[in-house]
Amino acid sequence: MVADLIKDRSSIRRMSGEIIPEEKINILFEAAGLAASAHNAQPWQFVYVLREDDGWNQFFECVVPANQRWAKDAGMLVVVASHQEFVIGDEVEKNPYAVFDVGAAVQNMALQASELGLALCVMGGCDKRNLRVATGLSSAYDIEVMIAVGAPEFKPSGRAQRKPVKEIAFRGRV
Amino acid sequence: MVADLIKDRSSIRRMSGEIIPEEKINILFEAAGLAASAHNAQPWQFVYVLREDDGWNQFFECVVPANQRWAKDAGMLVVVASHQEFVIGDEVEKNPYAVFDVGAAVQNMALQASELGLALCVMGGCDKRNLRVATGLSSAYDIEVMIAVGAPEFKPSGRAQRKPVKEIAFRGRV
Repeated sequence: MVADLIKDRSSIRRMSGEIIPEEKINILFEAAGLAASAHNAQPWQFVYVLREDDGWNQFFECVVPANQRWAKDAGMLVVVASHQEFVIGDEVEKNPYAVFDVGAAVQNMALQASELGLALCVMGGCDKRNLRVATGLSSAYDIEVMIAVGAPEFKPSGRAQRKPVKEIAFRGRV
Repeated sequence: MVADLIKDRSSIRRMSGEIIPEEKINILFEAAGLAASAHNAQPWQFVYVLREDDGWNQFFECVVPANQRWAKDAGMLVVVASHQEFVIGDEVEKNPYAVFDVGAAVQNMALQASELGLALCVMGGCDKRNLRVATGLSSAYDIEVMIAVGAPEFKPSGRAQRKPVKEIAFRGRV
């Protein structure tokens, strides 16, 4: 049941430093790419390094210090970017749904990671300027977040508390 | 397996006009609310009408004509909004992750709908100005999209084609 997986997923930060098998990495990105998107533009772009890669340090140094403390034990760091343009008919336009759609793609990835027994945590704070240099992403892409993925060392028993449904969903009017 | 559910999910537009049971509606919003969010701000806000509600017409008229053709048979229309502020320490700041996090929440909802056998389709185009009046959402919330949910009349056999993983995920550099 996906409801169980959704409830079970949490942002796991404590990782063991183990390598993630390439096969699982592929499954994660495949899941991401299956999200819906406005005009099927698929605005998501992922640039990643594995901890054994030469580029690891350059990506890792773009993580904010508070997250570096635990992200050092990730197996993979992913830069998540959104393509800000899409083609409507013959026109290139600003895609106002890019960020929303990229968020949806990352949720697929998070649920897939959870089912694969991987730890995954989205990190908002990061040095976007240096990440742009490191990744080679053009200015047509906005860098949104980074993601740390790894083997969980420890799974917290609880999760951050959530608002009850009646505080997020309103019938008719807020 | 969530991979199967992710693959199986598609944006179903052909709906039967049937009512959606309240229990299922609750499950959908519960799933949405379990997404991760920056500083656990939970920036999602949903305002919905069911087809038997007085407010249905007001919401429905905010759907663009191209979508009205099929959304008329939805059981529920949802306005999806993102809270643009969050509290960091003692400061109220602009939340730069709100849209991303709301996209993630809606993906939970989409997968949950798929498993419940419901049709769900995100609609980008909508009359946001009139939706603001209809919903009563304050200016602290941006209206992102609408969602139509219903009983599927017909499930398309295919889906919009997706880019292969090698076109969306790059190791080291794009």
